Amino acid sequence: MKKLVIFGVGLIGGSVALALKKANHAAPHIVGVGRGSASLQTALELGVIDQISNNIAEAIQNADIILIATPVAQTPDILRAIKPYLSKHTVVTDAGSTKSDVLDYANEILGDLSPQFVGGHPIAGAEKSGVSAASNELFLHKNVVLTPTASTQQQAIDRVEELWKSCGATVSLMSAPSHDSIFAAVSHLPHLLAFALVNDIASRPNADQLFSFAASGFRDFTRIAGSNPEMWRDISLANKNALLSELNAYQAEIGNLKNLLENEDSEGLQALFERASFARNAWAKSNQKK
Amino acid sequence: MKKLVIFGVGLIGGSVALALKKANHAAPHIVGVGRGSASLQTALELGVIDQISNNIAEAIQNADIILIATPVAQTPDILRAIKPYLSKHTVVTDAGSTKSDVLDYANEILGDLSPQFVGGHPIAGAEKSGVSAASNELFLHKNVVLTPTASTQQQAIDRVEELWKSCGATVSLMSAPSHDSIFAAVSHLPHLLAFALVNDIASRPNADQLFSFAASGFRDFTRIAGSNPEMWRDISLANKNALLSELNAYQAEIGNLKNLLENEDSEGLQALFERASFARNAWAKSNQKK
Repeated sequence: MKKLVIFGVGLIGGSVALALKKANHAAPHIVGVGRGSASLQTALELGVIDQISNNIAEAIQNADIILIATPVAQTPDILRAIKPYLSKHTVVTDAGSTKSDVLDYANEILGDLSPQFVGGHPIAGAEKSGVSAASNELFLHKNVVLTPTASTQQQAIDRVEELWKSCGATVSLMSAPSHDSIFAAVSHLPHLLAFALVNDIASRPNADQLFSFAASGFRDFTRIAGSNPEMWRDISLANKNALLSELNAYQAEIGNLKNLLENEDSEGLQALFERASFARNAWAKSNQKK
Repeated sequence: MKKLVIFGVGLIGGSVALALKKANHAAPHIVGVGRGSASLQTALELGVIDQISNNIAEAIQNADIILIATPVAQTPDILRAIKPYLSKHTVVTDAGSTKSDVLDYANEILGDLSPQFVGGHPIAGAEKSGVSAASNELFLHKNVVLTPTASTQQQAIDRVEELWKSCGATVSLMSAPSHDSIFAAVSHLPHLLAFALVNDIASRPNADQLFSFAASGFRDFTRIAGSNPEMWRDISLANKNALLSELNAYQAEIGNLKNLLENEDSEGLQALFERASFARNAWAKSNQKK
């Protein structure tokens, strides 16, 4: 790869750039494109990117990969902006947390060039943001999911897979609906549950008193409730159906817990807590790097 | 204080002992009582306690404070065992996570000596267990709630308050029902929600796949689902009514979220996430030691 263009040089885009610069003897020429010129200037000064461009035609000329790492809501506009200048030799990929919506955009906007698009989702870095937090190790041993379709070019998949492997990530391929259903369960649902708990407590008359006695269990449980509200609004709406199905399943689970409690079913409660505790500790043991 | 008797020299009891030994020029003589003789032997060898006793009459003779720091389910048996030998000069306290149930036991079992009993709950140390994990700093800047009743002796309250302050803790007084209602919201509910999420995911046909894509958000959210199942069974049953009321309020909150999602109410979702995110981050900022 000789030229990489990154739209949105924040934590994710910046960390990809830094990882490539560290990994390769011949790192690609990296061009940053974006609306926040101060942030791009910082990226240039930090040596994260080699060039800033505001001219899209020029920026993407001869690019091997265009990586869209902006908030997902900007993806359609970027696809529309690059479409007129997109060469058949350039692969386009993204780093959004939902994939069915992005594939729909790509199909609709890129049209006959959509086989050059590969949806991607690196599972890393939700806690911080901005290029100053970028790290060449952000993706080390982390999962990256790619969601090609039946019409995606094999060489486009290979090129994006190689990009992420160069960053130290483990790459998995699956369909966009599978991706969205899996992440509805293990990421989007927990975020909504944490937002819901904090909102529930914050809206009570004695919220201050309640918060003053909250301790480390509450701290860990609600850490993700400190996440970016706009980002999670977009993710929730983009993955609405899978998320509603998760919320329904979870309400049924809570209903089950309530029944056990109402019936003072000591054995049933213990069995449920044991299953959960065993599964959680087994998972933690096999995922100590996460 | 010249003599402290601890039933259950684990993380909590052991940490109280170590904190007193560090804090006081004239630390009390500390006697450990318990069924697990290996664990008491370890406590003695580590210098956490000064003496092991299996003779309750002898152990509690001339004791200033008896601290019950066993799992809560053992509290009634211990109260029954000490009752026949309990002097009017000895104060009894505990360290259980629920307080109304413990006060009921104390009233019923100690009878006319129940004004010498002060219910207590140190908010610390849920993650580890056992005397080997004990630390003289476990309670430093942590909250300890005491739940005296109208009939509790003032000098008993004072003595237990001093015990915890010597350990570096901040002591609050409130009624047992207030305690149980507050901790139902900020501790017991999050634990049950975390157990429920892991149980929900672990019971699915594709559980392995789901767990393999779970990342740091899931890790933090579910950390408390790795907690001791028996302990949380006991806490749940002991605080059943407050917890059922919390579960109902939470289900209503989830119902509200589902409505916002179904109606694709972008502004409503963002407003909810913003309230939660703001409240969570403000709390974290004011509680960085927790």
